[in-house]
Amino acid sequence: MDRFGFLGLGIMGSAMARNLLRAGYEVIVWNRTPERCSPLAGVGARLGRTPGEVARACPVTLAMVADPSASGQLCFGDDGVLEAMGPGKGYVDFSTVDPETSRRIASAVRAKGGRFLEAPVSGSRKPAEDGTLVILAAGDRPLYDDVLPALEVLGQKCLYLGDVGAGAAMKLVVNLVMGEMMVALCEAMALARRAGLSCDGLLDVLSAGALANPLFAQKGPKMLAGDFEPSFPLKHAQKDLRLALALGDRLAQPLPTAAAANECFKAARALGADDEDFSAVFRAVSA
Amino acid sequence: MDRFGFLGLGIMGSAMARNLLRAGYEVIVWNRTPERCSPLAGVGARLGRTPGEVARACPVTLAMVADPSASGQLCFGDDGVLEAMGPGKGYVDFSTVDPETSRRIASAVRAKGGRFLEAPVSGSRKPAEDGTLVILAAGDRPLYDDVLPALEVLGQKCLYLGDVGAGAAMKLVVNLVMGEMMVALCEAMALARRAGLSCDGLLDVLSAGALANPLFAQKGPKMLAGDFEPSFPLKHAQKDLRLALALGDRLAQPLPTAAAANECFKAARALGADDEDFSAVFRAVSA
Amino acid sequence: MDRFGFLGLGIMGSAMARNLLRAGYEVIVWNRTPERCSPLAGVGARLGRTPGEVARACPVTLAMVADPSASGQLCFGDDGVLEAMGPGKGYVDFSTVDPETSRRIASAVRAKGGRFLEAPVSGSRKPAEDGTLVILAAGDRPLYDDVLPALEVLGQKCLYLGDVGAGAAMKLVVNLVMGEMMVALCEAMALARRAGLSCDGLLDVLSAGALANPLFAQKGPKMLAGDFEPSFPLKHAQKDLRLALALGDRLAQPLPTAAAANECFKAARALGADDEDFSAVFRAVSA
Amino acid sequence: MDRFGFLGLGIMGSAMARNLLRAGYEVIVWNRTPERCSPLAGVGARLGRTPGEVARACPVTLAMVADPSASGQLCFGDDGVLEAMGPGKGYVDFSTVDPETSRRIASAVRAKGGRFLEAPVSGSRKPAEDGTLVILAAGDRPLYDDVLPALEVLGQKCLYLGDVGAGAAMKLVVNLVMGEMMVALCEAMALARRAGLSCDGLLDVLSAGALANPLFAQKGPKMLAGDFEPSFPLKHAQKDLRLALALGDRLAQPLPTAAAANECFKAARALGADDEDFSAVFRAVSA
Repeated sequence: MDRFGFLGLGIMGSAMARNLLRAGYEVIVWNRTPERCSPLAGVGARLGRTPGEVARACPVTLAMVADPSASGQLCFGDDGVLEAMGPGKGYVDFSTVDPETSRRIASAVRAKGGRFLEAPVSGSRKPAEDGTLVILAAGDRPLYDDVLPALEVLGQKCLYLGDVGAGAAMKLVVNLVMGEMMVALCEAMALARRAGLSCDGLLDVLSAGALANPLFAQKGPKMLAGDFEPSFPLKHAQKDLRLALALGDRLAQPLPTAAAANECFKAARALGADDEDFSAVFRAVSA
Repeated sequence: MDRFGFLGLGIMGSAMARNLLRAGYEVIVWNRTPERCSPLAGVGARLGRTPGEVARACPVTLAMVADPSASGQLCFGDDGVLEAMGPGKGYVDFSTVDPETSRRIASAVRAKGGRFLEAPVSGSRKPAEDGTLVILAAGDRPLYDDVLPALEVLGQKCLYLGDVGAGAAMKLVVNLVMGEMMVALCEAMALARRAGLSCDGLLDVLSAGALANPLFAQKGPKMLAGDFEPSFPLKHAQKDLRLALALGDRLAQPLPTAAAANECFKAARALGADDEDFSAVFRAVSA
Repeated sequence: MDRFGFLGLGIMGSAMARNLLRAGYEVIVWNRTPERCSPLAGVGARLGRTPGEVARACPVTLAMVADPSASGQLCFGDDGVLEAMGPGKGYVDFSTVDPETSRRIASAVRAKGGRFLEAPVSGSRKPAEDGTLVILAAGDRPLYDDVLPALEVLGQKCLYLGDVGAGAAMKLVVNLVMGEMMVALCEAMALARRAGLSCDGLLDVLSAGALANPLFAQKGPKMLAGDFEPSFPLKHAQKDLRLALALGDRLAQPLPTAAAANECFKAARALGADDEDFSAVFRAVSA
Repeated sequence: MDRFGFLGLGIMGSAMARNLLRAGYEVIVWNRTPERCSPLAGVGARLGRTPGEVARACPVTLAMVADPSASGQLCFGDDGVLEAMGPGKGYVDFSTVDPETSRRIASAVRAKGGRFLEAPVSGSRKPAEDGTLVILAAGDRPLYDDVLPALEVLGQKCLYLGDVGAGAAMKLVVNLVMGEMMVALCEAMALARRAGLSCDGLLDVLSAGALANPLFAQKGPKMLAGDFEPSFPLKHAQKDLRLALALGDRLAQPLPTAAAANECFKAARALGADDEDFSAVFRAVSA
C-alpha cells in the first residue's frame, strides 16, 4: 500500500500528510477550504476535488477533522467517502468523535463492503509534526495490519484495541489521567506558593524523580508565567472528563478523584477559561 | 571537606554511606545495632561507638534514621550529636521528620554554635543505591555549600530551599502529587477494566505520550499482577497526604482533589492495606 | 372546574385520583391495565376507554405515569390526549420526565390550541395518600390558576415556577439536596459507629436540634436495621444526581460536594443496590 | 440538689444561668470580668470571687467558657475548681473542648475524689435562651443522674453518651452533618440561580417536604439577602469539620463528601470569611 488519500488539512492533518509524503508515500489530499492544500502540493501532494474523488482514487483514505459533525459530513456528504466505498476499500478516521458517530460510519462503510478503522490520536501539534503521536486504533484488524507501516510513520506508538468504540473509550481513559495529573500539579503549585516555597523549585524537584513527565515539564513553567495560550482548550479537556465520568456512571465505576478534578475544571470554566489552555485550571485552583 | 560521620545504617543509610566511601570520602559510621556496621567496615568505613564520638571526630556528621523519635534520640540522647556540637561543626539530617522536631534540633545545634541542615530525600532503596536521590535541603546555607559535593554523590538533584521547615514542606507537596497521580492511575485502570479495555494496553499508551513517568511504569504492571509488596507503605503515603492537607488547612488553600484522593487511601486502610505498598489503593478504587 | 380526567392509576395516581373524588370532584379515569380502575370506580369514578376519550369528556385532564416514554405514549399514542386537544382544553402532567419530553408535549398541545402544565411532584406514596405532596408546576399560568383549587387538594404546597422546563429543573435541584443530605447522614452514622458512639443516640440528637428533618427521622432507624425496602429506588436517586450534575455542567456551576455524593451512590450501585431504597448508599459509605 | 455554681457568663452561660434561676435554683455565679455578673445578680444570683470559692460553696459547679484554654484555666488556675474538689463534689463543663483537655480535667477531678461530666451543647444563643439546647453528656453516670433535672431546664434533650470523650466526639459528628447540609443548601441555591429558578421558590419547596429543617429555614433567607452576621463563625465550623475528618482518619473511616464540603469551607476562608457566619460558605460555592 503506497498511495493514500488524506482528507482534512488542519494543523494536525497537514503535519500528518506531510510526514507521509516525506516517508515516500503518494498522497492525494482534499480540504474543505482548498487554499490549505497548496503547501502540501508544494511538497508533492496531488489534489482531489471531493472526498469521494479522493477515496475512489486510493485503496485507503485517511481523515483528520475537527469534530463529529465534520467527520460525518466527510463520509455522508455530497460525493463523500461513502459513495466511493466498496469491496477492498479502506477508510481510517483519526478524528476524535463520539462512539455513536464512529459506529454509524463503520456500519455504512461495511454495508458497502468497505473496511473501517477509528483511530483517535493522543498528542497535539508538536507530536503530529514529529511523527510521535500515539494512535489508538479499533475496527477491522486486517485493515489495521495493512496500514500499520503508514501509521508507524505518523506515531511512535500504534495500538490495535478491538472493536470500533474501543479507541474512543481508551482516549477518554487517557484524558481522565491527564485531567487528574494537571489538577494535581495545580494543587501542588498553589500549596507551595501559599507555603512560601519556590514553585520553580517544585518543578525542579518533580522533574527529577519518579513523577517526572513531559506534561509537567511543558506546562509548569508556562503556568507560572500566566501563559495559557491554548494547545488543548480547557472546554475540551473538561468535556473529556465529563464523558469519562459518564462512562464510569454507565458502568457503575466510582471515580471520586476524577469527579473532584472535573469540578475544578468547571470552576475554571465559570472564570471564563473555556478557550484557554486546559492548564488554566490553575486559575481556579489557586484563586 | 573529605571526612564525614554517618549515623543510621538502615536500607537507605547503608546505601548512602557506601556511595560516599566509593567516591573516596573517609566515613566514620555508627548504628544502634552494631552488626549493621560490619558490611560498611568491609568496604573501608571506620566505626564510632556513640553518635557523640562520631560527631567529635568529624567536621560534618550526616544522619538517616526512621522517624522523628529516632532522629531526636540521635541528637539529644546520651553522648548524642548535640554534646559534640560547637563552632564550626555541622550536622545534616536526611531523616523525614515533622517540622517541630526539625526546628528543635536546629535550635539546639545553633545554640552550641553549630550549623544544621534538614535534608529529607525523595526516592527509596533503588535511588539510594544508585545515587539518584532528590535531596530537599533547608537550613544553614554555608553548610549546604560546604557539603554540596558530597550531596551530589548521593543525589542526582540537590535543592537548597531556605529556612529549616522548607525541606519538610516541599517533601509533603511532592508526596501530595504522588498520591494524586497514583489514584489517577488506579481510577484509569479500574475504568478501563470495567469498560472491557486492556489494562496492559492502557499502560502501554500512558508510557508513550506526555503523561509517561517512572511511577506508572514501575507500579502499573505490579498492580495488575496484584503485587503490593511494600516499597513505600500505604499508611505512610496516607499520612503524608493528611499532613499536606493539614498544611493546606492552616494556609486556607483548598485542595479538593487531594482530599478526594486521601479518602481513597483511607478506604484502602479500611480494607487492611496499611502495610502494603501505597499502590494498594488500587484495591479500594477497583473494589 | 369540577370535572377532571385522570390518566395513570399506579400507586401515586390512584391515591391522587381518590383524593380528588373525596374532595367532591367528578373524575373520569383511565389506566393502561384496566383492572386498576375498579377500586376507583368503587368510590365514584367514571371510566374512560382511551386517553383521548377521557380528554374529550373533560375540560382539564391530569396524568401521572412512570416515565418519559409512558408520558409520551399518553399524549401521542393512538387516540391519545393530543387528539382531544383544542381551544380551551387543558392538560397537566404530574409525571417526572426530562425537559425535552415535556417541551415536546407542550408544543404539540399548544399547536392544537390547548394549554399545558408540567407538574412533577416531590413526595412518594404516603404524601400522595395524605394530600401533602409538593407540586412543582410550570407552563401556562392561566391553566395553573384554574386548576389550583384541585392542586391544593393533592398537595400541601403548590408552586408556579415559570416556563415549561422549570418544574423539572426544580425537582432536580431538590433531589440534589436530598442526595447530599442522605450521604451526610450515612457518613455521620458510619463515623459514629466506628467511634464507638451509639447510632440511635446520634439519631436522637439529630432529631432535636436545627438539623431535624423528616428524611432522617424516617430513614435513619430503617438504615440501622438494615431495611432497604425501596420507596425511592437508589438507581433513580443516582440518576437524578447525575442529571443535576449535568445541569451544573451545562451552566458551569461547580458542585463538588454533590459530585462526591454521586460517587458514593455509584459505589452503592457497584455493590448491587440499584433496586434497593436510596438509603442503601449507607452500605457503600460504611463498607 | 437545688444549688449550683455557674462559671462563665458569656452569651451562652448568662442565658443558661438565668434559666436555672427562673426554674427556682439557687445559683452562685462567677465571671472573669465581674461586670457581666450584675444582670444575673439583679435576678437573684449570688456572686463568688473565684472559681474555687464558688465550687467550695456548691455541691455541683457548672461551667461554660469559650475554649479549651479558658476551660483549663477555670480548673487548674489560682483558686480554681480543682482546689475545691473532693469526695461528693461534682463538676460539669458545658464548654466545647478537645478530648485531651476534657480527659485531663476529668483525671484531676477524680484524683481528688470528685465527679466530672463533659457536656458540650448543640445549639447557639436562641436555644440557650429558650432552654432548648441539646446536651451531650459523658463521664460519671451518677453525677449525670443527680443533675438531670437541672439539665432538663437548660435543654430540650439530654443524652448520656458514656465515658469522657464521647460527648466531644458526638458533637463533632453532629457538626459534620451540619457542615454537609449547609454546603448542600449552598450548591442547590447556586445551581437554582444559575438555572434561572427562584431561590425563594427553592426555599419554599424545601420547607414543605421531607427535607424541611430549621437550619435551612433560618439560614436560607439570610444567605439570599447576603446577611452573614455570625451566629456560628465559619472558622469554627471549618475547624469542627477538620476535627471530624481527623477522627475519621484515625479510625480509617472514609468520609469523601465531608472532605469535599470541608474544601468548600476552606475556599470560603480563602475569601476572608473566617469571622462571618458559617453560612458564608455560600460565597465560595456561588463564586
